[in-house]
Amino acid sequence: MNQFDAETIAIGTELLIGGRSDTNSLFLAEELGKLGIAVRFKSVVGDERQDIVAAIHMAVKRAQVIVMTGGLGPTVDDCTREAVASATGQRLGRRKDALEGLTARLAQWGRIPNAAQLRQALIPSGAIVLKNPVGSAPGFCLTWKKALIVSLPGVPREMEEMMRQAVLPLLRAAHESSGLSSRVPIVRQVFHTFGLPEADVDAKLQGLIPKGAPVDLGMLASPMGVLVSLTTKGNQSTPDKQHDLLQKLANEVRSRLGEWLFAEGRDTMEEVVGRELAKQGLMLAVAESCTGGLIGHRLTQVAGSSAYVDRGAICYSNRAKTEMLGVPADLIALRGAVSKEVAAAMACGIRERASVSVGLSATGIAGPGGGTEAKPVGLVYVGLDDGTGRPIAREFRFHGDRNIIKQRSSQAALDVLRRWLLDRASK
Amino acid sequence: MNQFDAETIAIGTELLIGGRSDTNSLFLAEELGKLGIAVRFKSVVGDERQDIVAAIHMAVKRAQVIVMTGGLGPTVDDCTREAVASATGQRLGRRKDALEGLTARLAQWGRIPNAAQLRQALIPSGAIVLKNPVGSAPGFCLTWKKALIVSLPGVPREMEEMMRQAVLPLLRAAHESSGLSSRVPIVRQVFHTFGLPEADVDAKLQGLIPKGAPVDLGMLASPMGVLVSLTTKGNQSTPDKQHDLLQKLANEVRSRLGEWLFAEGRDTMEEVVGRELAKQGLMLAVAESCTGGLIGHRLTQVAGSSAYVDRGAICYSNRAKTEMLGVPADLIALRGAVSKEVAAAMACGIRERASVSVGLSATGIAGPGGGTEAKPVGLVYVGLDDGTGRPIAREFRFHGDRNIIKQRSSQAALDVLRRWLLDRASK
Repeated sequence: MNQFDAETIAIGTELLIGGRSDTNSLFLAEELGKLGIAVRFKSVVGDERQDIVAAIHMAVKRAQVIVMTGGLGPTVDDCTREAVASATGQRLGRRKDALEGLTARLAQWGRIPNAAQLRQALIPSGAIVLKNPVGSAPGFCLTWKKALIVSLPGVPREMEEMMRQAVLPLLRAAHESSGLSSRVPIVRQVFHTFGLPEADVDAKLQGLIPKGAPVDLGMLASPMGVLVSLTTKGNQSTPDKQHDLLQKLANEVRSRLGEWLFAEGRDTMEEVVGRELAKQGLMLAVAESCTGGLIGHRLTQVAGSSAYVDRGAICYSNRAKTEMLGVPADLIALRGAVSKEVAAAMACGIRERASVSVGLSATGIAGPGGGTEAKPVGLVYVGLDDGTGRPIAREFRFHGDRNIIKQRSSQAALDVLRRWLLDRASK
Repeated sequence: MNQFDAETIAIGTELLIGGRSDTNSLFLAEELGKLGIAVRFKSVVGDERQDIVAAIHMAVKRAQVIVMTGGLGPTVDDCTREAVASATGQRLGRRKDALEGLTARLAQWGRIPNAAQLRQALIPSGAIVLKNPVGSAPGFCLTWKKALIVSLPGVPREMEEMMRQAVLPLLRAAHESSGLSSRVPIVRQVFHTFGLPEADVDAKLQGLIPKGAPVDLGMLASPMGVLVSLTTKGNQSTPDKQHDLLQKLANEVRSRLGEWLFAEGRDTMEEVVGRELAKQGLMLAVAESCTGGLIGHRLTQVAGSSAYVDRGAICYSNRAKTEMLGVPADLIALRGAVSKEVAAAMACGIRERASVSVGLSATGIAGPGGGTEAKPVGLVYVGLDDGTGRPIAREFRFHGDRNIIKQRSSQAALDVLRRWLLDRASK
């Protein structure tokens, strides 16, 4: 078989209509990708036996590895066990090894299994039981119509541990025995930009990928900027060649995106900025109006941020701007609270009052109310003051709802700080 | 046809492997459910024409309404237009109405369409063009093999507006003309609790649903609390009977959950608290340590929050607690920054300095570092001061990573405020 594709099936009515989306499949796609197995399809079905059966029947037609998550709990609506048995024509029976694991786990928690929990030890005949090292529900896997069907609990921590401890080693072993061990892993490299519209990023990357090269270029716009990705197609090259090509293209992406590129991979803006502040031994204080605390929240998402974040002032009212930051009431009256001058005065005020190296501020109109023709919703000023007497004040005009404008404003403020830090480091 | 089911197809390689999950389908399921159309399957495919074609061919076999999102952008990897044309055997051509909308939108932004953007006006023949009132990419819909295939942009705001303005009215009209207007809508009623573990919520709701009643009870735990849902099964009752049963059950849920129930439906904790502050004519100021600005950010997510949020102090360092809030350095030295006493002093300090009616504070250990045996990671104190000389200080012990502990801390702080507001209103 030339192709080696995977499909994930997430099971649970709450994933259809319940305000919760399937995130397990992101982990699965990444881990399977490392083995060179591409997740090409993802499905979500409710806790309905016939729908799960239909999803399995569809999946075996187009995938060789099928990973199902959810529907293994003790309650009556959990029917994945029954569905797999029915789809594959196997009998469902209580399995000794499944029961032992379940009983041992519950005993740890000081309980004995009740009738509902005993259902969790029901396993289709011929399936291998997969131990659950974290929770009570065992999983299982079986081969049917040349596809490996894996069934795991929906709880992310349990699913992840069972993948790591049982399923991935099993797939690796199967690969090796079938001579597929030389498969080229699917590698995805991600670049985060801020400040350029998607069309401009696209223009900068025109002609990047040589014709026929086994790499896909992706682009994804969000309020936080445009994400660029390079994904290898796997299996169309050798690992060495693929690695070299990806490195070459990644360098080209870096050089073309230049200053607009703020992070790579799982790195976030707040981590990048935090590392640089720590490296340069600087202490930061923020003054937030329209962002209402979001800049502070983001900075303090990073573990260890107390080393470079001293404080923040959320000065929502004009009085707070004057009392907390010393912004002259006259200046606010003259220029308006949303102005370059007030942004700069806020940054200067918080820096001086906190006695730190750098002050960062944001003031703007998050909407939906409060806009005028001269100062529309989405108008935002970011200020930065480092005590040199040359404060930075930058204007932004954002579109979107209140939340998006707040998110973009926080990103813009952190980006102004990032650019200032880079500039400072290069001097 | 007795059955009237929907399937969503989310398109984008980033949804397969890119760390982003499909959330559009949650909105779609809810809106379609209101028309009595049940989303029974969700699919996710990458930006691969043949995979999108396969997904469409599968979907028309099991659904009568197919809503596709994504893949309508200007870049080369956006190939939904081509895939739909190919799957349904239609020709793709540039459509005048699509081009006009696109050109007008770009003109608003001061641009003229480039070659890439012109691709967005390509529409399968026979399809109806759906105007995009927010962004540039037009959508379209067509009927094929008795199924309505709708293609919308992946940007949530654009997708939502196009559903509301074009697709839902169209479906409603189709329903009425086909005599399906009497379908019983699928109604989902949601209740938000905070402070009780899932097992305790479960215990409180034991035996709620009468045997055989056409309503499902759901429960979903998250860092923000346990969500309880009642979902009608549709089509198994008359609209009136269903409405009455749901109202009866909803009242029973309210009475059983009591004080633990903080909101219903789309309402959030910050909206509930905000409304009550406005109603009671109170002004709030917050002092945040471990939450780092998250409480302020959440409060100011609500439009009009400037009417009751005056300011916030993010006092991450001990020095900031003393300088910004007047918390005695001695007290911090004696009790520790994470203590009941400091939480109360922070709430009192911000209230006095802002001259407002109520001060709210949070101080804790968000981790992963900084914990000790006596004060472990996850220990959080919330303070509230109303100037009566009887400050509230409550202790919480949370589990989870840094982000979860911050989220829970903010929720706990707002819940302390909510309970205080309710108590005050009842006096």
